[in-house]
Amino acid sequence: MVAEIISIGTEILMGNITNTNAVYFARQCAALGIDCYYQDVVGDNEERMTQMIRTALDRSDLILLSGGLGPTEDDLTKEVVCKVMGEPLVEDPHTRALIQSYMESHLKSNPDSAITANNWKQALVPEHGIVLDNENGTAPGLIIEKDGKTAVLLPGPPIEMKPLFEERVIPYLRSKQEDILYSHMIKICGIGESAVETEILDLIDSQTNPTLATYAKTGEVHLRVTAKAENEEKALALMTPVEEELKKRFGDHIYTTDEEVTLEEAVVHLMKKRNLHLTTAESCTGGAVASRIVNVPGASEILEQGLVTYSNEAKQRYLGVSKETLEQYGAVSAQTAREMAEGGCRNTGTEACIAITGIAGPGGGTPEKPVGLVYMGCSVNGKTTVKEYQFRGNRTKIREQAVVKALTLLRYCILKQ
Amino acid sequence: MVAEIISIGTEILMGNITNTNAVYFARQCAALGIDCYYQDVVGDNEERMTQMIRTALDRSDLILLSGGLGPTEDDLTKEVVCKVMGEPLVEDPHTRALIQSYMESHLKSNPDSAITANNWKQALVPEHGIVLDNENGTAPGLIIEKDGKTAVLLPGPPIEMKPLFEERVIPYLRSKQEDILYSHMIKICGIGESAVETEILDLIDSQTNPTLATYAKTGEVHLRVTAKAENEEKALALMTPVEEELKKRFGDHIYTTDEEVTLEEAVVHLMKKRNLHLTTAESCTGGAVASRIVNVPGASEILEQGLVTYSNEAKQRYLGVSKETLEQYGAVSAQTAREMAEGGCRNTGTEACIAITGIAGPGGGTPEKPVGLVYMGCSVNGKTTVKEYQFRGNRTKIREQAVVKALTLLRYCILKQ
Repeated sequence: MVAEIISIGTEILMGNITNTNAVYFARQCAALGIDCYYQDVVGDNEERMTQMIRTALDRSDLILLSGGLGPTEDDLTKEVVCKVMGEPLVEDPHTRALIQSYMESHLKSNPDSAITANNWKQALVPEHGIVLDNENGTAPGLIIEKDGKTAVLLPGPPIEMKPLFEERVIPYLRSKQEDILYSHMIKICGIGESAVETEILDLIDSQTNPTLATYAKTGEVHLRVTAKAENEEKALALMTPVEEELKKRFGDHIYTTDEEVTLEEAVVHLMKKRNLHLTTAESCTGGAVASRIVNVPGASEILEQGLVTYSNEAKQRYLGVSKETLEQYGAVSAQTAREMAEGGCRNTGTEACIAITGIAGPGGGTPEKPVGLVYMGCSVNGKTTVKEYQFRGNRTKIREQAVVKALTLLRYCILKQ
Repeated sequence: MVAEIISIGTEILMGNITNTNAVYFARQCAALGIDCYYQDVVGDNEERMTQMIRTALDRSDLILLSGGLGPTEDDLTKEVVCKVMGEPLVEDPHTRALIQSYMESHLKSNPDSAITANNWKQALVPEHGIVLDNENGTAPGLIIEKDGKTAVLLPGPPIEMKPLFEERVIPYLRSKQEDILYSHMIKICGIGESAVETEILDLIDSQTNPTLATYAKTGEVHLRVTAKAENEEKALALMTPVEEELKKRFGDHIYTTDEEVTLEEAVVHLMKKRNLHLTTAESCTGGAVASRIVNVPGASEILEQGLVTYSNEAKQRYLGVSKETLEQYGAVSAQTAREMAEGGCRNTGTEACIAITGIAGPGGGTPEKPVGLVYMGCSVNGKTTVKEYQFRGNRTKIREQAVVKALTLLRYCILKQ
């Protein structure tokens, strides 16, 4: 099966947004073992969309479209695909009811809005299509099969598109495949990408089935082990020896082997298991560490208190950092990071505290303390570890790296106990 | 002039890299007033590249290609474009000399490498083409003009592509253009996309120059006003009446008319101007509101203190929410939101506090208080506003919406003063 990825939207053609949907689809196809020869972008223009979709259906078996399913006049994807494939549009009462209820609850939080007539356009679906209910928006996903060709239409916003793809489209595509690709993700923190690559060069060089691929993320490296086999059992038999070898080589740096588990989830689960409670004490990260932890459902069981102590006064008042330390060493110092972590535990009565203080820039740097310098303190059961980091990049990039390092350090300090 | 952006490389089709070159070219074209109707990605395959380039030259005047100019067998872009355009390749002694000197200096820092024979392939250039010397690599950029069509070929790595584009391709393209596009972005919060569209339907229907386009973001709508004119002054004269009309219709909902300014930046600037200081008191957003504010350089001037009070104890201890209120109405209630906001101001001594308490899910919902129910309290100079919202979607989506609403509510309460 050959797939083609089509992204619809003038905002992509104008360069207002980066086409991350195409990367996402490309990776998903690769993971499913579906070849993909073309990616296209076309604007909200009926004639050009028609030509593009006709060409794509001509040369590919499966087209994956995103964007252009919304309520406005510009949104034409469904209409054009149905016209090209000769599929009539009919109103779907189920979808209409879902839109109604979605809009009503939206109105509750936006009493000044109104349900406008154009919203009902989204209840029109291809007569013989499969409708994928969208819990995160009003436009449903759609699958149309005709004359040996398949079109999958998904809303553009990733937050709507991804759940639909993962929950509905992947099982659908799997059911059409003979040999299936199975893959596991080994997620590593605390080692850089080139160090990981060097460590597994021999495995990469000798790979056939399973294959091994590395993906770098901020502060993390993910290794995908992929096997092609007719069923899951046979795939597992191929993958297991490679995974065992990776576990031997990377040990505790592997925080999960579950595709779905994030670093913050691994940390929250670890803390629950050890019955530890957390205080976060953040300066330059400004609440982003607490927010990452709150991403995890049930984080309330471990997160006792998050403090964003941006000012020196707040550091003294809420964390008991001493005035002398702040004056002698400064707010961005190993000493302050240590007192923040220890004060966080003491004041809130938690067993653990992660503290971050640094210079995110663009201002505030000096030759001795340049932009990107970040100190972290981590207390677990009375033992405090302090680390110094020098991050590169702009404010956002520095803060992102600091958040991941904070989670990594916290995990490391707990495991070391 | 209509341009088409073509990115060459199997690594893009496999999802191993994000196609950032396409966004870059798209923005550059938009800024130059060059329309762009299609973007394409094709792998390192001669037949498919040939078809793609033939189609593109058929429907567009200018094709901007990146990737596939390197020394390996897979690198075919130049060969395919020259074949399709009927342009012979000849060795360019100047380019050969540049490659020689580049390789020699590379060898100095990498003594284990060697100049391999395939490198000289990069000295072959189209006989009548323009050669763009590449200071950051061995493959030169190339411009080929034939039969009214133009092909611009640039190396794939952004660090090589961008200097060539900015120093050589932009002046080349400017010399071919009469009119240039100018655009402004009007950013709106507190009204939904379809309500905005309904409000401006008449303007959209009658648009020619300038044009008006809407872009929805979580909790925001952006309107782009674009004019085509021979210079900036004439473009402004076209845009100003439309922008004035939009200001009349959307009033205070417009938080900025500056492309670069984010909602959090607008809030921080507004607070600085009014000399207000902020405490954030977050439950379900878990520090994400504080973190958004800390995105803004210099946020320390207004953000006094961020509190993530997840537990009832923390709400009592750090915000002075009364035990009775928590017991009688619950942590997720209008009463608690009000006490959080007022307690935040009182305890920290700031003029403003935004408080958020809600159920982000997936667990914790009840028929009376379903997942997505969020209360916000906002105190500014002693006056407190409390709002109830019902958000939809998964935990991430509910939290994202809550963060934007919190910033919107804070801004609204300040403006109302």
